[in-house]
Parts: sequence; C-alpha cells; structure tokens
Amino acid sequence: MRHFLTLRDFNKEEILEIISLAKNIKDETKRREFKPYMTGKFLGMIFEKSSTRTRVSFEVGIRQLGGTPLFLSSADIQLGRGEPLKDTARVLSRMVDMVMIRTFGQERLEEFAKYSSVPLISGLSDMYHPMQLLADYLTICERGYDKNLITAYIGDGNNIAHSWLMLSSKLGFELRICSPKGYEVNKNVLNNAYNFAEKSGAKIILCDTPQNAVTGANVVTTDTWISMGQESEKERRIRDFEGFIVDDKMMDYAQKEAIFLHCLPAYRGFEVSDEVFEKHSEEIFDEAENRLHVQKAVMVWLDKQR
Amino acid sequence: MRHFLTLRDFNKEEILEIISLAKNIKDETKRREFKPYMTGKFLGMIFEKSSTRTRVSFEVGIRQLGGTPLFLSSADIQLGRGEPLKDTARVLSRMVDMVMIRTFGQERLEEFAKYSSVPLISGLSDMYHPMQLLADYLTICERGYDKNLITAYIGDGNNIAHSWLMLSSKLGFELRICSPKGYEVNKNVLNNAYNFAEKSGAKIILCDTPQNAVTGANVVTTDTWISMGQESEKERRIRDFEGFIVDDKMMDYAQKEAIFLHCLPAYRGFEVSDEVFEKHSEEIFDEAENRLHVQKAVMVWLDKQR
Amino acid sequence: MRHFLTLRDFNKEEILEIISLAKNIKDETKRREFKPYMTGKFLGMIFEKSSTRTRVSFEVGIRQLGGTPLFLSSADIQLGRGEPLKDTARVLSRMVDMVMIRTFGQERLEEFAKYSSVPLISGLSDMYHPMQLLADYLTICERGYDKNLITAYIGDGNNIAHSWLMLSSKLGFELRICSPKGYEVNKNVLNNAYNFAEKSGAKIILCDTPQNAVTGANVVTTDTWISMGQESEKERRIRDFEGFIVDDKMMDYAQKEAIFLHCLPAYRGFEVSDEVFEKHSEEIFDEAENRLHVQKAVMVWLDKQR
Repeated sequence: MRHFLTLRDFNKEEILEIISLAKNIKDETKRREFKPYMTGKFLGMIFEKSSTRTRVSFEVGIRQLGGTPLFLSSADIQLGRGEPLKDTARVLSRMVDMVMIRTFGQERLEEFAKYSSVPLISGLSDMYHPMQLLADYLTICERGYDKNLITAYIGDGNNIAHSWLMLSSKLGFELRICSPKGYEVNKNVLNNAYNFAEKSGAKIILCDTPQNAVTGANVVTTDTWISMGQESEKERRIRDFEGFIVDDKMMDYAQKEAIFLHCLPAYRGFEVSDEVFEKHSEEIFDEAENRLHVQKAVMVWLDKQR
Repeated sequence: MRHFLTLRDFNKEEILEIISLAKNIKDETKRREFKPYMTGKFLGMIFEKSSTRTRVSFEVGIRQLGGTPLFLSSADIQLGRGEPLKDTARVLSRMVDMVMIRTFGQERLEEFAKYSSVPLISGLSDMYHPMQLLADYLTICERGYDKNLITAYIGDGNNIAHSWLMLSSKLGFELRICSPKGYEVNKNVLNNAYNFAEKSGAKIILCDTPQNAVTGANVVTTDTWISMGQESEKERRIRDFEGFIVDDKMMDYAQKEAIFLHCLPAYRGFEVSDEVFEKHSEEIFDEAENRLHVQKAVMVWLDKQR
Repeated sequence: MRHFLTLRDFNKEEILEIISLAKNIKDETKRREFKPYMTGKFLGMIFEKSSTRTRVSFEVGIRQLGGTPLFLSSADIQLGRGEPLKDTARVLSRMVDMVMIRTFGQERLEEFAKYSSVPLISGLSDMYHPMQLLADYLTICERGYDKNLITAYIGDGNNIAHSWLMLSSKLGFELRICSPKGYEVNKNVLNNAYNFAEKSGAKIILCDTPQNAVTGANVVTTDTWISMGQESEKERRIRDFEGFIVDDKMMDYAQKEAIFLHCLPAYRGFEVSDEVFEKHSEEIFDEAENRLHVQKAVMVWLDKQR
C-alpha cells in the first residue's frame, strides 16, 4: 500500500506514470466517458483548512470514478476536540477506502498514515502541496513546455516552492527560485532537492533578483503571500515583498511564449498584477481544472497498488 | 445558454413552460419514476446564507435527476476571504455543469453569471426569490386558482414581494400589496412591473390597508419580518407591523375558499397567527414540497438550452 | 410506521431480529455484495451535535444500501434559529424517506417524531444512545460472549449507561453499574429497567465499588466523563471520578478473557488507561465499525415496516 504525502516519496517513473494516467483520464472525461475505476469506493475528505478547489475537485473526481466522497470539516467531526489522530485513522480505515487530508503540519499526515490501513492523500500541508504540482506539470506538458523546461518561482518560500523543488529535482528540469530575505525555502527540503538533483541532472538555482530568476524561463509562477495573517503582518509583508510582483515588466524578462501559472486564490496588485493574471487566465484555469484530472489519476493509481 | 436569476428575464410562455414541466416531473416523482434527465451532471451549490428548504430540495432534486450536488457553504470555501467572485465562477465552470447561489446582493449573482460558462440559478437574493414564486404558482395551479387569480401580499416589501410583482406582471393576474410605511417595495422593481403589466394586462394595486388588499382575494400570502436583525430593531418592527398579522379576522375578508401561502420559516404571532398557519398547513407544506419539483424543472429546462 | 428513538420501544424479539439482520448485512458487505435495499431513498441527517462516527457510518451506510444521505448541520439549516421543530419535520417528510437526528434533549426527538410522516432514528441524545448499544451487542455476539453475558459499566450514569439498562433489561442478561456519587443513572430509566427485568429475568445490580462491578464480568465498558464542560468542572470531575479509571489493575478483576468496549472518543488517563485501550483496540475498533452494520440493519428494518 502506498500513500501520497509528498513527491519526495515518488521516483521519476512513478510521477510520469501518474501524469500519463491523468492525460488518459482527462481525455475520457472530455468525451464524457466515465469508467468505473473505483465503483463503490469511499473517499473520506478531512479539511482542517477550507478550500474551494481541493473540495470541489476531489468531490467531482471520486464521483466521476464511480465512488463517493465524504466531506468532513474539522467543525463537523471530533478531530481536534481531544480525539487522537491515530484513533480517527483507525475508525475511518474501517469505513472508507481512501482518505484525503488538508491540514497544517506535515507530521499530522505522517501520524495518520502510520495508523491508517487505507491510502492517505495530502490535499496540502504547511510543508508541501504535491497535488498542485502534478496539476501544474500536466498543464506544462499539455503545452509541450516539458521539453527544455525552465521554471522561475518568485516569492514566498512556502509549500508550493517546496513542491517545485521536489518536482524539479525528481524529474530533472531547471528551477530558479527567488524569495525575499526572511522568506527563503526550508533548508532541509533544499538539501533533499540538491541530493535528488545529482541523480536526475536537475539544475536548481537560488537567484538574487526576481529578474535574474525569470530571465529565459518559459514557465513563471508565484503564490500568494498576503492572504494569511494579521493586519500588522500584512503591512510588513507588503514592504518585504516589494519588487516581487509578477507584472508585465517582470514577464518581459521571460521567454516570449512563457506561460504564467498560479494555484489560486490570486491577490491582484500583490503577488501578481491584474494584467498578467488576465492575460494568462487560460493556462491558470486549465491549471485549476487539471487538479481534477491529476487527483483522479492519483486515486486510481493508489487504489491499484493495494 | 440561459441563467435563472430573476423572473424579469423570462416571458410568460417560458414561465408557463417551466410550470408545465414541473407538473410532469412531479407526477413522475409521485410514481417513483426517476428519468435520467441530468445523469452525470454536477450542481455546485453555494450558500452565503443558510437554508433548510433550499438546501434539501436542491440536493434531493439534482439526485433524483441522476446528477450530483456539491454543497459549498461560504465557511467551507474561499469565497469572501478575498477570492474574487469572477475567479470562483471560472474555476467552478471547469468542474461542474450548473451552479446555484443563495446570497445577499443580486449584483453578486450578476457578476458570477457574467464569468460563468455554465448556467447559474438564484436560490434567493436580497432582491428576488424567483424559485419560491414558481413553487407558489405551481401550488396555485394545482388547486385551479390560476383562473381568476387575485393575490394579496401583506407585509414587508422584500424579495418575496418583488418576485410576486414579477410573476403577476409577466403572467397578467391581479396582485394587491399592502406594506407598512417604511417597508414599501423597491420603486424600480415596481416600475418594471407596471411596464410588464401594460403588456400582460396584470392589475397591480398598492393598497392602503391590509383589509383592502385581502378583500376578495383567493390567495393570501405574507413573509416573516421579525426573523432578521437586532433586538432593538425587533421591537421597532413589532410596532411598525402592528395590524399586519394574517389571522382569522384578516382571512375573513378574503374569498371563502381562499388559500394561505407562506414560504417559511413562519413566526407565529408575528406575521401569521398559529390558527391560520395550522388551518392552511396542507397548502403551506405542498408549497414547500413544490420547491423540489419546480427546481428540478428549472434545472432540466436550463440544461436543455445549452 | 416505527421510529427508533430508544430501545425502550423495542421488545427482545425485535432487537434480536435487528442484530441478526446486521450480521447478514455485515457478511454481505465483507463480500462487497451491496444489495439495493433502499435504492433511491433519502436519509436526512440532522446534527445538532457533531460526531465523526455517527456521521461517517450513516453516510457510508445509506449509500451502500443504494440511498443518499443529506448531511444537515444545525449551522447549515434554520433549526434553532426560530423555526419550530414541527415545521422542519413536516417539510423534511415531504422530501426525504427517513431522518436521523443527533441532538440534546430526548424530547426533541419525540416532538419531531410526532410530526414526521417518515421514520425517525436517534443518533444520540442526552438520555439514550441506542445505536451504540446495538453495535456493542453485535460485537459481543461476534465473540460468542452473549452466552453467560455479564457486563460491568464503570463511570458516568449517562446516555450510554441508560442504554445499557434498556438492553440488559430487554434481553435478560446481567448488568452491573458503578458510578461515583452525584453521577448516578436516572431514576426513571432505572425503574423502567427493573420492570422490564422482571419479565426478561435480567439481573441489574448497582455496585458500591468499581471492583465489585467488574469482578467476574466478561464485558467491561465505560465512557468519557472529561470531554464536556468547563475547566473548573473538569477539575471537579477528576476528583469525583478518582478510582474509576479502567486500567490493568481493574481489568484483573474481570474474567480472564474479558473484552473491553468503548464507544469513543477515548480520553487516555481519565476513564481508561492507554494500556487497556491499546490491548483491547481490536474489539474497540470492531465496535466502531459495527456502528455501520447495525445502522444499516435499523434503516432496512424501519423501511420494511412502512
């Protein structure tokens, strides 16, 4: 049995196999051909953090596969009101066939997985967001940008940045990261990525300016840094992230045909300008839709391993 | 593609076509004959305001049509925490086949519809409640009261009153409205209704006393005015709505066989007496049930227009 | 039509019939044989108190029977914001085929049942938790402990204790209860149990020490007493329940092969030690899983009575 908690646990062949499966499933979906990959199976979905995309894409996804979602917000269940995660894991394992958790600490996923007798999927943690990266990579492949891929990630060294590090170092493409002082990526994750890169041939480069990172990239991406936290924290972040907005001037440094990806929600005027967002809305909403397709692929893939 | 945001956007033929479809679908449902009108389709349901009837009737309805509901309370998704409605519209359009929103401002529905590539249904706004009016009209038709229909609406000039104005002025029946000073219907909606009435022949009459409005009516209806707002506001409203309760004495002014409709929840002793409510509970709960049938009809109708 | 609000309303033959049905349905489920016992039926589920197990087991259960759950938290609907329960009962009766309520006062269940035209199921109240007891009894039967059954309930004289009184007095087995001073079982429930016991031959014994209750028992059980209430209340309860923890020393008084049951969530170090919990985790999680199977049996049984 396998879990899907971080791309760290997957090798290149497995990642490409899942992407390939996602392409097939997407094609079938577009033809409204819904194969009963998981008929009668139940997916428990625990949201300790709420989300539009994760919620809708998993519910639609498991249904299209013939299964049933169980949406459990932390308000609806007894998690966090004293019940140990290991008990919830053992109870749910008796009733459902797979579990998805969207949570804070990566260690909560690991604790649950340890006691779960059914596959566990990460729907995001503070450390990683592996599903989003598969959706991003599918979007990249659909445009043929996986050949000679050079990705520039601009901004907060967060769970999205960490997952880019895993994807790049596993698959062997070039990744440039530029974060403001104090918002750098996690050292351990970076060292892991450097290690994987030695084998895969990936080029991982920390850049000193966003312009240097973007120069020559064919994929530019970022993530919100304003959405969380207090008002006072907000003001500080606005100062700290000065110069990191992806606007038309920034995009001019990239390759002419470069695409711009954003995992949403997007805060115009902060990490991205409204112009860049709307100019690239086709790939951004393809990227959002691809969450559906890659998640179906991961569920089918995990279900086959049992 | 059509949306269902207000009866203003529909002509007489279309409204009657939907009512007729609702009758058929209700008959099939009573025979437990569930035709796969929307097999494999997904209905996203966004509740910015909670509701028993809207929630249950849409969930049961889309399922009986062969589709799947996705219940999204605003607490569960990222709407209202900074994500622009236009982004949510574009994301959901990629994953579901139809969307229902129950919200505050009518302009939120319009903004969503503008960016949605799938049909949008209003499940109520501060301005209109078109689905409720279709349910009311189906209840009226089932009793044969659509011939020589004279409706008296007593009370708050709110979204229900506005939708009565649209229904009457489109279909051409007589509507009397009596609201207390300060709680009159919206002027623009009223003027629109007067304009439509010129074509349809509807008689729309603002009355100076509830008794005048009710005299000779065969349908009497009202809505809660106590349920919202602060304690101080409540006391003021109790004073302002004095004399507007629909009780036995008030019903005596109506035709002998008059029915009483209420969209629920009902606050006994405020807008309606317990006696009137319980005496007319058969039509009131028929009316509640008819939400299910008209909503199924609207969904099927919209799905056919695509 | 029958409701399922307390085991008080059921006789021995009916309880054993439901347990037998649960065994069959569990066997079918284990073979992944899902018979369409309730195809196209809807179960409304109202949670005035949240819960993991009740939530998941009812949702999975009704689906495996071919039906559809409607999860309604009190935040999502208008219950408790002024709508009388009798109106909600009448509306839901028009749209769904069965209702489950998890609530506070038993009188809320009775009020709803009075106005409901579809069967109502208790998913717990402050007074009883009948579904849990069926799950416990199924777990007991699966191990053959229903022959010569001697149960010891240690701790709070709450809804679980009351349901043990009903189960024992209806089926005729021996039940020992020991509660701290001030936490005794309800007198009326106890008297009812004594009356039923006269007919069934059950031995119901209130013991003065937990050790006396446990001595010779083959089933030991308890429930949380720490999870509810304020911090100050907590401290008082810790004092009041001194000596009531089910730990290895306590279990030594029971029969050698005695099992330990817990309805969860369990608070280690309070009503049960971690050692006892983990040593008996197999039966505890069987017991949790059996919620699923007995609930399916109750739904099928009630549906047949209509």
